[in-house]
Amino acid sequence: MPLPGIQFVFPLIRPQRYVTHYYAKQALNYTIQNECDFNWTHTQNILLYQPTVNYIKNIVNSQPIADDFYEKYSKFVDKFGARPSGSSTLERAIDHMVDLTFQSGLNDVWTESVKVPHWQRGYESLTMILPRTRNMTILGLGPSVPTPTAGIVAEVVVVNSFTELETIAHTVPGKIVLFNAHFTSYQETVKYRQYCAIAAAKHGAIAVLVRSITPFSLYTPHTGSLYYEEGIRKIPAAAVTLEDADFLQRVYNRRKKVVVKLKMFNDLSLKESRNVIIDVKGQENPDNIVIVSGHIDSWDVGKGAIDDGGGMMISWFVPVILNHLSLWPKRTIRSILWTAEEPGYIGAASYLQRHSNELDKIDFIMESDAGTFEPLGLEVVGSPDVRCLIAKVLKLFAPMDAIKNVNITGSDIELFLNLGIPGASLLNQNDQYFWFHHTQADTLTVQNKTNVVKCAAFWAAVTYVIADLPFDIPP
Amino acid sequence: MPLPGIQFVFPLIRPQRYVTHYYAKQALNYTIQNECDFNWTHTQNILLYQPTVNYIKNIVNSQPIADDFYEKYSKFVDKFGARPSGSSTLERAIDHMVDLTFQSGLNDVWTESVKVPHWQRGYESLTMILPRTRNMTILGLGPSVPTPTAGIVAEVVVVNSFTELETIAHTVPGKIVLFNAHFTSYQETVKYRQYCAIAAAKHGAIAVLVRSITPFSLYTPHTGSLYYEEGIRKIPAAAVTLEDADFLQRVYNRRKKVVVKLKMFNDLSLKESRNVIIDVKGQENPDNIVIVSGHIDSWDVGKGAIDDGGGMMISWFVPVILNHLSLWPKRTIRSILWTAEEPGYIGAASYLQRHSNELDKIDFIMESDAGTFEPLGLEVVGSPDVRCLIAKVLKLFAPMDAIKNVNITGSDIELFLNLGIPGASLLNQNDQYFWFHHTQADTLTVQNKTNVVKCAAFWAAVTYVIADLPFDIPP
Repeated sequence: MPLPGIQFVFPLIRPQRYVTHYYAKQALNYTIQNECDFNWTHTQNILLYQPTVNYIKNIVNSQPIADDFYEKYSKFVDKFGARPSGSSTLERAIDHMVDLTFQSGLNDVWTESVKVPHWQRGYESLTMILPRTRNMTILGLGPSVPTPTAGIVAEVVVVNSFTELETIAHTVPGKIVLFNAHFTSYQETVKYRQYCAIAAAKHGAIAVLVRSITPFSLYTPHTGSLYYEEGIRKIPAAAVTLEDADFLQRVYNRRKKVVVKLKMFNDLSLKESRNVIIDVKGQENPDNIVIVSGHIDSWDVGKGAIDDGGGMMISWFVPVILNHLSLWPKRTIRSILWTAEEPGYIGAASYLQRHSNELDKIDFIMESDAGTFEPLGLEVVGSPDVRCLIAKVLKLFAPMDAIKNVNITGSDIELFLNLGIPGASLLNQNDQYFWFHHTQADTLTVQNKTNVVKCAAFWAAVTYVIADLPFDIPP
Repeated sequence: MPLPGIQFVFPLIRPQRYVTHYYAKQALNYTIQNECDFNWTHTQNILLYQPTVNYIKNIVNSQPIADDFYEKYSKFVDKFGARPSGSSTLERAIDHMVDLTFQSGLNDVWTESVKVPHWQRGYESLTMILPRTRNMTILGLGPSVPTPTAGIVAEVVVVNSFTELETIAHTVPGKIVLFNAHFTSYQETVKYRQYCAIAAAKHGAIAVLVRSITPFSLYTPHTGSLYYEEGIRKIPAAAVTLEDADFLQRVYNRRKKVVVKLKMFNDLSLKESRNVIIDVKGQENPDNIVIVSGHIDSWDVGKGAIDDGGGMMISWFVPVILNHLSLWPKRTIRSILWTAEEPGYIGAASYLQRHSNELDKIDFIMESDAGTFEPLGLEVVGSPDVRCLIAKVLKLFAPMDAIKNVNITGSDIELFLNLGIPGASLLNQNDQYFWFHHTQADTLTVQNKTNVVKCAAFWAAVTYVIADLPFDIPP
């Protein structure tokens, strides 16, 4: 059921441009930038920031600043928990962050309203009926359509890839397809979650299951977003655990007829939400903007502590701590807490539309949405000059001076990077990120206070330097 | 409510002797036995087994034996799943293993009936009421008493140790105690699960929660057994996840009043079950017995694939493969599939009582109940002579020749070792064992076929050698 008039905030049916950003979340293989030639005077000017960088890092990493920051973060997560797009909890969390900003002494803060999808999960169950009765834990993918009230009872066919599905396409009509693709990289494997419904429905399947997108599980289902395509029937879609995918595969391989009953109830509506914008006006070039950001919404399972409570909080903290230290850079620093990232960068898309005539003022855009584990450096998108500039800036942060040059990064900021605006994501030691991603296990227990504080210190200092550079940032 | 007449099968109220065995499950720090002096002729005789050991290992590790064995194991787990003490599923699983034994060509197989507890988990929920509403996932500990139908609503006090509880004992009456002890070793930490109800009730608590006994969680609650003590009120007891324990601790530390509602419904009754016993009669000393064992029951969550499907299956396989290879040793090999290990070694206690007049015939007793990951060697209990003998035997299995000398090992067999019978457990690379232990994640996905088959080969060959030794096994 298409909702008229809101196509622009629902980019779910034109997903191609949103796929590659997930690559950014795999920061295992980073490289230290080789030496590069950069303007000698500029390089010397960058070196002058060493004392300021040390000052910011020392202050943030010391008590009581570190304690106070981490307590604000943990209280936020404990108080609000999951903050799904369109929920009243998300709106209260947004109010809370606005209040916190005013309380910290910053007045240049406002919200911009955005129409967002509100997909509400209801009762979900998957029960094997043949060859024996067995309940399995699932998580529906948003914004999946619901099943009929009585559920869907159908035979299951198991495939490991889209290619394998093609080879047995004639057996698929009226069945439920399970995509049992083992995790290789998130970028590679997530396409099964994103395109499972389209691929299965195209061949006549009446529902679809997908192996959770993770390399490791403790019987842990992972939710996430999926795409539908105009003209192809929208079928219910859910993720099963690695354990149940393995089980169904084994039973299927034994040539047993596998029949399951799937029930998924949920509701999709349109709500109002808001991006939060906090400015610290530039002292010399207030019209030039450096954006630093994270998203404030989360999935409805877990507490959104790492996706993206941590990234949101360290980005909020940048203007707060710089203002507290009376460090006002030449350019304007704009911290944005995006709403509705999870359903498809809805907040970012709205910002882009609303601010379309001022995009050339954005000198650099940053986002942290791939964990706040031990900080390593930055993942950078931009021209060779930009990459070289950032490499020089990162030298101020050794040993956090790793730079990973990528074609696309972030999540929300991908929309800006695609327009040619240079930017970066926080590179951090997030090799277990996908164990927790979009699950009940996305809680504060994953976080290590020392590392989160180190991320906050790094993030504030590197944003400050970039925003204060006494020369133009290359395009 | 004590069940009259079954005290001997419910050793739950005299738990002290059952605690130490868990040490056996921590096989991280093992050592290769130093050289020891052993009778020169005996040592030479042991060396003569090298070709037989190689033969057994090669046969078991090769197709189709390996495939067939692993398929039997995985079909067993897939067909029956959880096999809780007293359940009809457990009895069907027992029948299945008896049938499988006959089908494999062994006829000397029988069962011995045992009265076992049947603790049936019903609806369980834990909801925070103050300072805000929040549902938390729990797993009741068996055989916890239920709550009243309306649940228990009470304030929570959080402590990290029994000692800390003592210091705030005056605040405990009428409250729910949460023991939030972080995992150090299983042996150290499991006492909080085992004794939480006794310790909390002694001070007037009306229910008790315990942080799950694991070093790692993906929002994963762990069940397990707890003890009650005559004369101390039996209160409901449940495990919370690491994540919720951390959360409750944080809120409690902020001096917020924490109030929760706990609902736990369950039922305890007495049922009939059976130990399965399979003999391959000794060719020279049939009255001397070497026992090899695992337990066939499991907790009601997960599929009991690693606790103890794997250990049970490799122990069942010992007489089967040796008979298949016409390798009939001098002593009798008795494979026992214990019933009702989880509620407290009920099957083993029953065997001990029934066979009390033939215990001096047991030359050596083995159990695998700590995982079937990569095999490393044996964990041995016995006199210095026994340990030295086993060290010599293990040299036939290099590099699987690690020997860990312990005071107690196994689970069921602990009852025998305490009587002075020498024995051993399978030492294996089980450093992640407690991530999965007593959870929904105890499934075949944890298992690696190659390793399980290697365990089966090692277990069969080492049992053969011990049972065939041409000299008396030292007492």
